[in-house]
Amino acid sequence: MIRNDGRAPSDLRPVRISIDTYGYAEGSALIEMGNTRVLCTASVEEGVPQWLRGQQRGWVTAEYALLPRSTAQRTRRERNGLSGRTQEIQRLIGRALRAAVALEALDGFTVTIDCDVLQADGGTRTASITGGYVALALALHRLTAAGRLAANPIRRAVAAVSAGYVGGNALLDLDYSEDSVADMDCNLVLTDDGAIVEVQSTAEARAVSRAEFDVLIDLASDGIHRLLALQREALAPVVERLGVASAELQSEDRSVADGGA
Amino acid sequence: MIRNDGRAPSDLRPVRISIDTYGYAEGSALIEMGNTRVLCTASVEEGVPQWLRGQQRGWVTAEYALLPRSTAQRTRRERNGLSGRTQEIQRLIGRALRAAVALEALDGFTVTIDCDVLQADGGTRTASITGGYVALALALHRLTAAGRLAANPIRRAVAAVSAGYVGGNALLDLDYSEDSVADMDCNLVLTDDGAIVEVQSTAEARAVSRAEFDVLIDLASDGIHRLLALQREALAPVVERLGVASAELQSEDRSVADGGA
Amino acid sequence: MIRNDGRAPSDLRPVRISIDTYGYAEGSALIEMGNTRVLCTASVEEGVPQWLRGQQRGWVTAEYALLPRSTAQRTRRERNGLSGRTQEIQRLIGRALRAAVALEALDGFTVTIDCDVLQADGGTRTASITGGYVALALALHRLTAAGRLAANPIRRAVAAVSAGYVGGNALLDLDYSEDSVADMDCNLVLTDDGAIVEVQSTAEARAVSRAEFDVLIDLASDGIHRLLALQREALAPVVERLGVASAELQSEDRSVADGGA
Amino acid sequence: MIRNDGRAPSDLRPVRISIDTYGYAEGSALIEMGNTRVLCTASVEEGVPQWLRGQQRGWVTAEYALLPRSTAQRTRRERNGLSGRTQEIQRLIGRALRAAVALEALDGFTVTIDCDVLQADGGTRTASITGGYVALALALHRLTAAGRLAANPIRRAVAAVSAGYVGGNALLDLDYSEDSVADMDCNLVLTDDGAIVEVQSTAEARAVSRAEFDVLIDLASDGIHRLLALQREALAPVVERLGVASAELQSEDRSVADGGA
Amino acid sequence: MIRNDGRAPSDLRPVRISIDTYGYAEGSALIEMGNTRVLCTASVEEGVPQWLRGQQRGWVTAEYALLPRSTAQRTRRERNGLSGRTQEIQRLIGRALRAAVALEALDGFTVTIDCDVLQADGGTRTASITGGYVALALALHRLTAAGRLAANPIRRAVAAVSAGYVGGNALLDLDYSEDSVADMDCNLVLTDDGAIVEVQSTAEARAVSRAEFDVLIDLASDGIHRLLALQREALAPVVERLGVASAELQSEDRSVADGGA
Amino acid sequence: MIRNDGRAPSDLRPVRISIDTYGYAEGSALIEMGNTRVLCTASVEEGVPQWLRGQQRGWVTAEYALLPRSTAQRTRRERNGLSGRTQEIQRLIGRALRAAVALEALDGFTVTIDCDVLQADGGTRTASITGGYVALALALHRLTAAGRLAANPIRRAVAAVSAGYVGGNALLDLDYSEDSVADMDCNLVLTDDGAIVEVQSTAEARAVSRAEFDVLIDLASDGIHRLLALQREALAPVVERLGVASAELQSEDRSVADGGA
Repeated sequence: MIRNDGRAPSDLRPVRISIDTYGYAEGSALIEMGNTRVLCTASVEEGVPQWLRGQQRGWVTAEYALLPRSTAQRTRRERNGLSGRTQEIQRLIGRALRAAVALEALDGFTVTIDCDVLQADGGTRTASITGGYVALALALHRLTAAGRLAANPIRRAVAAVSAGYVGGNALLDLDYSEDSVADMDCNLVLTDDGAIVEVQSTAEARAVSRAEFDVLIDLASDGIHRLLALQREALAPVVERLGVASAELQSEDRSVADGGA
Repeated sequence: MIRNDGRAPSDLRPVRISIDTYGYAEGSALIEMGNTRVLCTASVEEGVPQWLRGQQRGWVTAEYALLPRSTAQRTRRERNGLSGRTQEIQRLIGRALRAAVALEALDGFTVTIDCDVLQADGGTRTASITGGYVALALALHRLTAAGRLAANPIRRAVAAVSAGYVGGNALLDLDYSEDSVADMDCNLVLTDDGAIVEVQSTAEARAVSRAEFDVLIDLASDGIHRLLALQREALAPVVERLGVASAELQSEDRSVADGGA
Repeated sequence: MIRNDGRAPSDLRPVRISIDTYGYAEGSALIEMGNTRVLCTASVEEGVPQWLRGQQRGWVTAEYALLPRSTAQRTRRERNGLSGRTQEIQRLIGRALRAAVALEALDGFTVTIDCDVLQADGGTRTASITGGYVALALALHRLTAAGRLAANPIRRAVAAVSAGYVGGNALLDLDYSEDSVADMDCNLVLTDDGAIVEVQSTAEARAVSRAEFDVLIDLASDGIHRLLALQREALAPVVERLGVASAELQSEDRSVADGGA
Repeated sequence: MIRNDGRAPSDLRPVRISIDTYGYAEGSALIEMGNTRVLCTASVEEGVPQWLRGQQRGWVTAEYALLPRSTAQRTRRERNGLSGRTQEIQRLIGRALRAAVALEALDGFTVTIDCDVLQADGGTRTASITGGYVALALALHRLTAAGRLAANPIRRAVAAVSAGYVGGNALLDLDYSEDSVADMDCNLVLTDDGAIVEVQSTAEARAVSRAEFDVLIDLASDGIHRLLALQREALAPVVERLGVASAELQSEDRSVADGGA
Repeated sequence: MIRNDGRAPSDLRPVRISIDTYGYAEGSALIEMGNTRVLCTASVEEGVPQWLRGQQRGWVTAEYALLPRSTAQRTRRERNGLSGRTQEIQRLIGRALRAAVALEALDGFTVTIDCDVLQADGGTRTASITGGYVALALALHRLTAAGRLAANPIRRAVAAVSAGYVGGNALLDLDYSEDSVADMDCNLVLTDDGAIVEVQSTAEARAVSRAEFDVLIDLASDGIHRLLALQREALAPVVERLGVASAELQSEDRSVADGGA
Repeated sequence: MIRNDGRAPSDLRPVRISIDTYGYAEGSALIEMGNTRVLCTASVEEGVPQWLRGQQRGWVTAEYALLPRSTAQRTRRERNGLSGRTQEIQRLIGRALRAAVALEALDGFTVTIDCDVLQADGGTRTASITGGYVALALALHRLTAAGRLAANPIRRAVAAVSAGYVGGNALLDLDYSEDSVADMDCNLVLTDDGAIVEVQSTAEARAVSRAEFDVLIDLASDGIHRLLALQREALAPVVERLGVASAELQSEDRSVADGGA
């Protein structure tokens, strides 16, 4: 079975992650997955939300928006309150990225990950997580290297991708033309030690059997491992330049995940 | 391992579903799962949302709210826009209940399922789905019996429950004291032929392995089958009185799920 | 003249007041007047509104909402600002209940009375006042008994009822079918020593003479005295158990009203 | 007993009603009661609110606002939703003025009475009703005289005033210094044949006895008769010029009120 | 060329500025330019906006609103957020009036200039600036005379007027009938030493040449000098009574403008 | 005098205009003026705003937003209503671009120009106009070439730039470091035949003399002519490919401006 754009069912779209392209953020990444392009920026601000005061923890949160012509038809800006869809997406991104961070090591700071979709061709929420992690890691590596934190709060990498059933076939990384006719759509977020951070799976046209569901999880897990490698590649020059102890980070990651297993 | 309230890990809390308790809805159910109590009402109105006009389909949607003192501390009413949490929950309920219905058989009508939480002790969104199905089925059975629809739009039952890891133990149907310390929380929605409608699984304190995740799905699936039986019991008197062709409905359900397998 | 439901013009509908039915409030009452059913909860929170700071007084306020299917047709939730009707009703309830309380004895606390209408068949605002008083008294008796207040802030009971002209007849406690065709509608709030807290009388279809108006006030006054007895009955078990000095309270009430005369 | 400004308890403040002072309204009145000054304008627009379509009736509604420096301290403009107080006041004004009009004779038109308070020294809502009637009558007399209506929809005059207890004395037409220390405040709206349109009586500092309440109604009734005469005087030049059949109107008024008695 | 109302192209409409007409403001002016009438009030409040704290400066800001029947057709009140037009106008008024004031001499105070249009016949924003200056100067002269400020913060007078092209003719002080058909409209704000505070010039129907633009600036400058004289006249009685050092003020003004040249 | 970035007072920053970079708009331009980068997209939609129905004209409007990290400090998204600044800017952009278009030739269509600032270093509103014209021209050239319009509605080009006084020097095209200390700031919009579309000149720190003001207008006019050339260059490939009659357009432009002179 060959897809519209020539991919095999288990292929990702071509992925490119560029850092520090636009603006003045402490860390930023422009992620492109095929025609989907999302500008992710990480803003570090002093202080924490009111409800977190006095708890010796920092905070990581996310905002998400479509530029009006990221879509084939113009999408109206959300200027008088957010839609449920937008809120759901930005809550998902925030939760996923908090799984990458030891919030107690971030005490006194709030990091906001802004995900602005420049071009939308399916999979914008998972691309936001994958690109958002790069922006977040950049910002926190730099904050640590600048001596503003005692220890680097990054504990593990997270990345995400979608998978779904289209016409009976299980496909990885759906583009918009596939997503809009999918029977079931699954978004998966994993850490770089293979632990599950989030599963969101929704029957659009029909409910699926347990066996079918398991196939989607396998497919998405494979894709995420490739994305995690691309994240490391994008971060490598900065990690090297700053001398961030990334090896230690990874062994530490593993121990946390092992503790869970 | 014994839980606070004496349950085994795979026990549901005591469940009671009463119908037509308060108000004037076309169908309503008061579902109690332990101390969690949700009043679910189904309101049938003529007409469909603007974006659905001319598509020969009806619509099912949901709204969710906590009464202020359903919670131990007073929860403020959402009178100036909804929180992301509320929007997420009511979108989930709506999607789950639409999986029960053949929308083309509901052409010309919108059914709104209102889930008002009278008492909140964990699991309010899954209780809303389980109770909401009963309210919805009541309303549509009656609408069909009254001759206002050519065929009964109910295609299959849906029910939902949560499961999660607390202190390393996989537990079914978390109450609030368990939910607030859970490592990972999973909400599952199934049809009465065992197909998966929705999985929402979120790491709160730690990501889990694939094997751990599979245990939660198994646990929740078992719980849902018990809830589906209680739904049938609650509906039985009305189904009998109206002479709704429930047997046919079930065989039809199965064929749909088979088609998917 | 006999009314639809068989009542005489000066009859109340069957009244039932149950306490502590749903939720976790410090005090709550479910009041039923015929088919009208309102869940009233009293929430005690520390602190007072900003504008009251430093004045050595506590505060009592109220919120009111219809559940969507409390009404024959579904009523939309007020999620983007309140209607004038709702604001008027909850301001009335708050004013009426503050008349029951010595705010200076409540220093440091805010009590919010939430009145959620489960079923609406006319007279929801007066039922909210009558039931709200029971919830408020329960909460304050308990707060006092728990030693958190130096003296019980409850000074007198308040209750309310409607009366109106329908087809030339003065009727007590209008149900919805009567209210919707009434010429004039009057809501009266009295204390248990017979003093007038609030009169709200509105000509719907025609203005009435002074003599006609006086008849309504007499009719409603009689009804309120019966409601005050039912409130005492509902509170009796708790008052006895806690040993609240209710007799003293009543004599104190009287002196206040005498001082006014 | 002599009041701050030298009035006897049953005196109105000096009243002046000027017509067509500012702006381009179909009818307008600037009413001054002592230092309280309200600009009332009546705007006639074609069409009726959506919910009234097809009912062969017109509509009369009101809006009310304080100019920021009508008050001793600057009052913030209500630019993001209305306060409960404002909504209550404009609903009262609207109801009161609809009692003056045969809505079926106004079919096809909406009249909006805007009451903008230029200077606030107590009694702004009752001044708005009294002045608003003059603006409304002007607009409808002119609309009728212009041949745009088959019959004049004005059926009777309405006027309003406040009365209240201050330090044990029953006083008519409270100014702000009196209102702010009143024990009980009563707003009364009457027609020119003496029928009661609205009573709103609220205990501020203490509840009052029935006898005390009756005194306030008597006091306010007397004041309103004087205001009705001043309204007639203000309208007289226009009524004469247009040749509006004011005599007939008044006899008709009376018959309506008689029917009610 | 003679205009509708008989004016020559370079004539202002009849101007009248009255002070302290309505309300309780620390300073107020009712400015009438032909049929345009704006009530401008200056409210002095202690404290400065949050973003200005600790900067040893006071603040001057403005609000602007049309009364509903200031216009030929009723204009809706802006009760749920402001239109872009209103925001633009009140930002312009605020900026213009701040040019009159040494904010450091106003440390600790905020002055709000409210411009409420009673009647709108074109040029309401420029009338608001011209009248607003009088209200502001009154308030600050009085605040200084009362000893609440070490020095009078008024540094220079500002006034404003419009000019535009109508049918090829350059006209001063457009009324509504002219403004609505103008090709280009220019609003100019000058100080009393002739310096330019603000130019806002907008092509409505056609862009104009540089030479044409210069003609408008000349025309408006002449008009503003006449308005500045009328402001002085309106303020003279108060300036004299309070003994405000107005001569010094003016020489100081000039030096500031010279410094700029 | 040499500026921070080495420019002479009358130099523009380096300008680059790229077309069709991101998204799916009918026309788009990414304009870079030094570090200021704005993505301008033109969206063509069928239909016109309600207030324009039946007038045989199309419409051009604009929206403007800063991406959160376009600025050195994170700027909050405007999700609950727009600030006055944003409204002012997008109204300015819309007016300026409408001057480029014969709206009657656009009958039946609305074009929305979205200006999203990716990086903000001063002059974002003028860059939005200059880049927005390119996006608009692209979209309308294509719409015309596709045969959906009888005639190309583009009548003339428009471009804009700022100029201002910094420390006594008149500078062209201020960057943020200059803008934030400017005494006076002027934004000018011209057509390609030299006519003035809009002048917005605001004294920040001091008012300026007429002679000083004239210098700014000269400086900005020169800058705009260079920008108009760069616009033509950016559009040339598309204009050639589509064979749009650009020569005719320009002569037509000139006649319109001559008609005005």
